[in-house]
Amino acid sequence: MIKVAVLGYGTVGSGVVEVIERNHTKVNASAGEELQVKYILDLRDFPGDPWEEKVVHDYQVILADDEVSIICETMGGVGAAYQFTKQALEAGKSVCTSNKELVAKHGAELLAVAAANHCNYMFEASVGGGIPIIRTINSSLTAEKLEAVVGILNGTTNYILTQIQENPEADYAESLKAAQELGYAERNPAADVEGHDACRKVAILSSLMAGRNVDPEKIYTEGITNVSRADFDFALAEGMTIKLLALSRIEEDGRLLAMVAPFMLPMTHPLARVNDVFNGILVTGNMLGDAMLYGRGAGKLPTASAVAADVIECGRNPSRTVVRGWTQEEAGLADIGETCRRFFVRARISRREAVEAAFPGGKVCAQLENHNDCAVITPKLSEKEFEARYSALGDAVLGRIRLL
Amino acid sequence: MIKVAVLGYGTVGSGVVEVIERNHTKVNASAGEELQVKYILDLRDFPGDPWEEKVVHDYQVILADDEVSIICETMGGVGAAYQFTKQALEAGKSVCTSNKELVAKHGAELLAVAAANHCNYMFEASVGGGIPIIRTINSSLTAEKLEAVVGILNGTTNYILTQIQENPEADYAESLKAAQELGYAERNPAADVEGHDACRKVAILSSLMAGRNVDPEKIYTEGITNVSRADFDFALAEGMTIKLLALSRIEEDGRLLAMVAPFMLPMTHPLARVNDVFNGILVTGNMLGDAMLYGRGAGKLPTASAVAADVIECGRNPSRTVVRGWTQEEAGLADIGETCRRFFVRARISRREAVEAAFPGGKVCAQLENHNDCAVITPKLSEKEFEARYSALGDAVLGRIRLL
Repeated sequence: MIKVAVLGYGTVGSGVVEVIERNHTKVNASAGEELQVKYILDLRDFPGDPWEEKVVHDYQVILADDEVSIICETMGGVGAAYQFTKQALEAGKSVCTSNKELVAKHGAELLAVAAANHCNYMFEASVGGGIPIIRTINSSLTAEKLEAVVGILNGTTNYILTQIQENPEADYAESLKAAQELGYAERNPAADVEGHDACRKVAILSSLMAGRNVDPEKIYTEGITNVSRADFDFALAEGMTIKLLALSRIEEDGRLLAMVAPFMLPMTHPLARVNDVFNGILVTGNMLGDAMLYGRGAGKLPTASAVAADVIECGRNPSRTVVRGWTQEEAGLADIGETCRRFFVRARISRREAVEAAFPGGKVCAQLENHNDCAVITPKLSEKEFEARYSALGDAVLGRIRLL
Repeated sequence: MIKVAVLGYGTVGSGVVEVIERNHTKVNASAGEELQVKYILDLRDFPGDPWEEKVVHDYQVILADDEVSIICETMGGVGAAYQFTKQALEAGKSVCTSNKELVAKHGAELLAVAAANHCNYMFEASVGGGIPIIRTINSSLTAEKLEAVVGILNGTTNYILTQIQENPEADYAESLKAAQELGYAERNPAADVEGHDACRKVAILSSLMAGRNVDPEKIYTEGITNVSRADFDFALAEGMTIKLLALSRIEEDGRLLAMVAPFMLPMTHPLARVNDVFNGILVTGNMLGDAMLYGRGAGKLPTASAVAADVIECGRNPSRTVVRGWTQEEAGLADIGETCRRFFVRARISRREAVEAAFPGGKVCAQLENHNDCAVITPKLSEKEFEARYSALGDAVLGRIRLL
């Protein structure tokens, strides 16, 4: 019998209990023996909940119980969650988490603590919700030199961008409002729309790819708050769309280029068709070429199912560290200013000549009806060179978006 | 040190050696110790090949060598490959294969032999080439009750169908010829175009889903040889395309509905955008909802990389059966005649009235210019009922394709 404790009885935590309960035949068969939730840690009580008797308020009860071998950390945050996780691992209890913030910030340390104590720190649910990207990298693409990961890792922003794409009248502000009304975006949407959530996720994927730690605070991150209706109109007319992409690529010198930003990409690109709250992750390996995973990047049950799969893998491997993850050594990050790409630039129509002169060899986008702005797509330029020319244009320019 | 033998130095076998050699740092790190190819079994010699000294012609040499703990079966066929695999497993050597025919035909028995001898029979490369669908089902979706798998599992036919879709002049015969010239289709293309290859793969996925054996010969299988230019013209005009789909679904009574056939599906469906030689597999779980995997379903290095990942997992788990797979008990298959769906029917324009009368409540497709045929989409009917009405129409009808 495998006994489990769930820390935090919120959306994901209650989902984990639900998955283990509703799918118990499959879960037990997969784990190789019966798997049971023994405790639920929460500060609240849940009178009337079918599991109310399992609720405890004191973490020490769980920590001191030798029967509990696996803990699901679904609390969130980097305070108590960090302490509780570390204490559990030091006690030889494996921890499975959906907490991307904690994995991105302290993953390297917690993985080392797990290895030192012959248990596991697992985090499938921290990136891509129900999409099994972590296990694909750790267990399936084990013979591949991974070269790049590019993904739509945030469902909220993808929903907003899809709204703008599909409704010719929609703009950013009202699409955000629609997302909030549907519960896809929080009342304070900053973590999503400013790109921080995607940044944490790509930090985790980057660390896995590099085998060394990538600090999310060092990843260039730009959100979608400046993406306008006009940008979409020009993009669609060019056969492209706009997505918030998180990308991580190993450069020729071995350094890692990681960033989060809105990108224009052709409608024929596999990620262009990943719409609404869905996530998509394109992985490139040196033997495999490209492979893509697509699915629900969030949501109670998909995320809980990923946590449960981690619990099952821990259950199958008692006293055995299955995944090493990455070391605490810092990965070398490439200077984003040196990377080269094309840029879409939107400008005042009255200043068209100045803008075209600034980017000779660029492509002038077709003029759109009822638009007081014009647009060009620059030739390939380094980020540094582009920013110099772009900022020199002053108030002639209205916005710019990178091309993938 | 983990020592490996490769049986069959053809496309995939030489690819396995290449992946292990070129990515040896990653491969060794993943396996946890050095991994080396000790023997290559082939009837031929390979003078000048960098690995020529590893080539042996007698399987007994490999079988008798206790140093060899893992064998890659990349020979194909169900004769010697079956014998060699069984002998290896009986000797406690794990076997990793790309041989879908053998897995579909004798997988249940070979999995049982592996379990009895504390070793593994692994077959990631047998379905979807480089796409890690087997490990996703076995190791990631372990807390899910899988409800359905629908996939484009054959790259050759998908290339041919994509050609017809994208070139308004192309028909089946010339698209097949183009595929043959590019090496995507064999000179005798029957295994691909008649659907047998996809059938074997969906038999494997069905067996995994059901946990019991699904005999590929009992799976209803229809190829693409009857799909015409005219079918595509009508489909495209309706916002749909045509794909050869392999599907497997657990029905409410627990029986499994498995089949391979061309289907019309809306362009907005995720599988509609899987083009050329790519494969795509949509998995539905009761908690996860839909997730899709997409990538190269064939090719030397992607397939070899999947075999190498299996070798690495075997190397990490000496004397331990990791995957149980499915039992030899036969899974109950649903009667395809009872399943209900809509059908596209193409007919002679002179017989339009009879056809419309046969399917009251159907949708009459817009008449296309320069076409001497008409088309209707029937209401939902059981396969049995549809076939009765369709065959009663005699030579009035020119073809029919299921709707997804």
